[in-house]
Amino acid sequence: MARLVMKFGGTSVANVERIRNVARHVKREIDEGHEVAVVVSAMSGKTNELVSWVNEANKHYDPREYDAVVASGEQVTSGLLAIILQQMGVPARSWQGWQIPIETDGAHGAARIARIDGGGLIEGFGRKEVAVIAGFQGVEPATGRVATLGRGGSDTSAVAVAAAIHADRCDIYTDVDGVYTTDPRIVSKARRLDRIAFEEMLEMASLGAKVLQVRSVEMAMIHGVKTFVRSSFDDPADPQPGTLICNEEDIVEEQVVTGIAFSKDEAQITLRKVADKPGVAAAIFQPLAQANVNVDMIIQVVSDDAKTTDITFTVPTAEFERARAILEKAKDAIGFSTLQASTDVVKVSAIGVGMRSHAGVAADAFRALAEKGVNIRAITTSEIKFSVLIDAAYTELAVRTLHSLYGLDKA
Amino acid sequence: MARLVMKFGGTSVANVERIRNVARHVKREIDEGHEVAVVVSAMSGKTNELVSWVNEANKHYDPREYDAVVASGEQVTSGLLAIILQQMGVPARSWQGWQIPIETDGAHGAARIARIDGGGLIEGFGRKEVAVIAGFQGVEPATGRVATLGRGGSDTSAVAVAAAIHADRCDIYTDVDGVYTTDPRIVSKARRLDRIAFEEMLEMASLGAKVLQVRSVEMAMIHGVKTFVRSSFDDPADPQPGTLICNEEDIVEEQVVTGIAFSKDEAQITLRKVADKPGVAAAIFQPLAQANVNVDMIIQVVSDDAKTTDITFTVPTAEFERARAILEKAKDAIGFSTLQASTDVVKVSAIGVGMRSHAGVAADAFRALAEKGVNIRAITTSEIKFSVLIDAAYTELAVRTLHSLYGLDKA
Repeated sequence: MARLVMKFGGTSVANVERIRNVARHVKREIDEGHEVAVVVSAMSGKTNELVSWVNEANKHYDPREYDAVVASGEQVTSGLLAIILQQMGVPARSWQGWQIPIETDGAHGAARIARIDGGGLIEGFGRKEVAVIAGFQGVEPATGRVATLGRGGSDTSAVAVAAAIHADRCDIYTDVDGVYTTDPRIVSKARRLDRIAFEEMLEMASLGAKVLQVRSVEMAMIHGVKTFVRSSFDDPADPQPGTLICNEEDIVEEQVVTGIAFSKDEAQITLRKVADKPGVAAAIFQPLAQANVNVDMIIQVVSDDAKTTDITFTVPTAEFERARAILEKAKDAIGFSTLQASTDVVKVSAIGVGMRSHAGVAADAFRALAEKGVNIRAITTSEIKFSVLIDAAYTELAVRTLHSLYGLDKA
Repeated sequence: MARLVMKFGGTSVANVERIRNVARHVKREIDEGHEVAVVVSAMSGKTNELVSWVNEANKHYDPREYDAVVASGEQVTSGLLAIILQQMGVPARSWQGWQIPIETDGAHGAARIARIDGGGLIEGFGRKEVAVIAGFQGVEPATGRVATLGRGGSDTSAVAVAAAIHADRCDIYTDVDGVYTTDPRIVSKARRLDRIAFEEMLEMASLGAKVLQVRSVEMAMIHGVKTFVRSSFDDPADPQPGTLICNEEDIVEEQVVTGIAFSKDEAQITLRKVADKPGVAAAIFQPLAQANVNVDMIIQVVSDDAKTTDITFTVPTAEFERARAILEKAKDAIGFSTLQASTDVVKVSAIGVGMRSHAGVAADAFRALAEKGVNIRAITTSEIKFSVLIDAAYTELAVRTLHSLYGLDKA
């Protein structure tokens, strides 16, 4: 007998028929004698509909009211799944965030979970009851207002609940059957990984792989929650194991590079002829930081005249217009000649904990990309990954090149 | 300065543009210096969509889970209206039933309000804040589960909140501009009433007028809540007064008959050749009562042979099949020859507190209907109303005949 958390995303609960399929997965685990808490997202499309109404009401909305509106989607799914489980003879009840409670901080719209009281859920297990939990939502205890965890937040709900009830395992059911070496839609030779280290998964998620919310991976890593990514579209009677996210030491055959991620959510800004004097970097990046613009890759090139410099950096696409406005406003204070921008760029990254013990991993990539005529606009590296910024037109070529280079292609 | 409750139904909040119009009505009252609590229904169609999903999940659903699902509709509207009010410069916040709390009994799906803590709402008035309350829902305090009040329950939410916060007035905004002498779609000469007594409104609602939930009228009567029915489609800058529901003594020019209601939600059952012996009525009506079938009009006619009797009664259409099954099962115990049934009947009622002091009001109606060739199948009377059961084909003729007979036609 084990205690499990099972999480199902929006496409897995898109309509009543699919929710019935989810219930079959849950029943399988119950029939094997496990205690089960299920975390569900809103039916796919519902959150977008709710968000569109909020934006139609007022683009500058009160995030507390945004949360009251959008949290309703998960409420619906949790009730429907509980009803279907009961029909299958599985005792079940729905739990909203405020009923458990899942306590959050006050950052409405992107709240962080502060504390979960698992007592009620565990009491339910004593009555052989499946807990069907509305994901994505919690309650801010000081005000009693509903708070949501940001898009993809149900992953984080699931991992946090798993930590709170000391679950043996957290299964994230999704529309793919695990974590791949890269996006199989881009590289047909992409392989499903049996295991991936928490640190690698964190980088993969941060660098563009959409399979899990970044915060859920952080939380799984901190609390040591054994997390599987697996498919909800498997036959409930014959489920596949998916990908286990685990500690580095639990991975036997370690690759140098585990996966290739890419993100088109990048915009490049270049400031030309910035005076090359102390304090200029602060003049550029402080106002951006104050406005919560996330600056990523930064490169600085001394110009021909040696008195000025060109500074290039990237920001998320969603923050691009805001960043441009801030910089244009600060033009005199910074002292640059022109601002050039490109949103037609992509960041391609290679990730692997094996990089720690292997030198020259990035250098191989630069050579391989150069041989294919891919121009690198910027580079960043860290202990277990490196990223290159390239023209978006070369995305597929670059991803396939790196995927082959590091031996990730399917046999 | 007055304290108001304003309630808006599903068609009044059907989309964001209509919710914006609702906000204009609220702002008008705020600009006049009033304290305002708004009660909103789900966007029209949403509750039906949610109910259809529940039924698709399992027709024999757990009513606690039904409530978790369907209460989400009002949650959405309350958040959207709060956002729009804030945009107009009116401080506002949404309140779910469990946040106030609106405490109910445990009759999920058709719960009764037991207690409302108006403290939080009144504190909000102190901050000049409009309380936007999700109608139709509350919380069962013993379990912390969400409970809903049955279809049309937002009317009851509004009146109950008005009583709890000692509001000076409760305005029920709807898609008609008041209470009419009868349905204007049937009788073009129907007139809007300026005032109607609580008792009359209660009968009108019970007997088929759909303008208010019956329980909301009961509650307004018990707590003496001054309630207006008025149109949300009026120009917010030039609102019409609608119909005041008030105590009988506040109505100056009293009519004998105030309104004509009709209900097609009736099914007639006749049991032929029932043995005319003591205890037979109990044999028929006890099993129906035990199964919560609401029996309304009952008539008993002695047959030709004088040893048996025919018993005719009506039940709501929704309970008809259940009633028939119960009676067929008890056929031997009751001892009848055949069960005849008709769902093609209508109950037409005339209501007026003036009937108390006028004799022969019903007799006039029987004569007038007979002159038009309308056959009366059953009759019931009470102190302030009488009802006749007739063939559905004669509905319009009968309603128009009575409307003219009692001087209700528009001048």
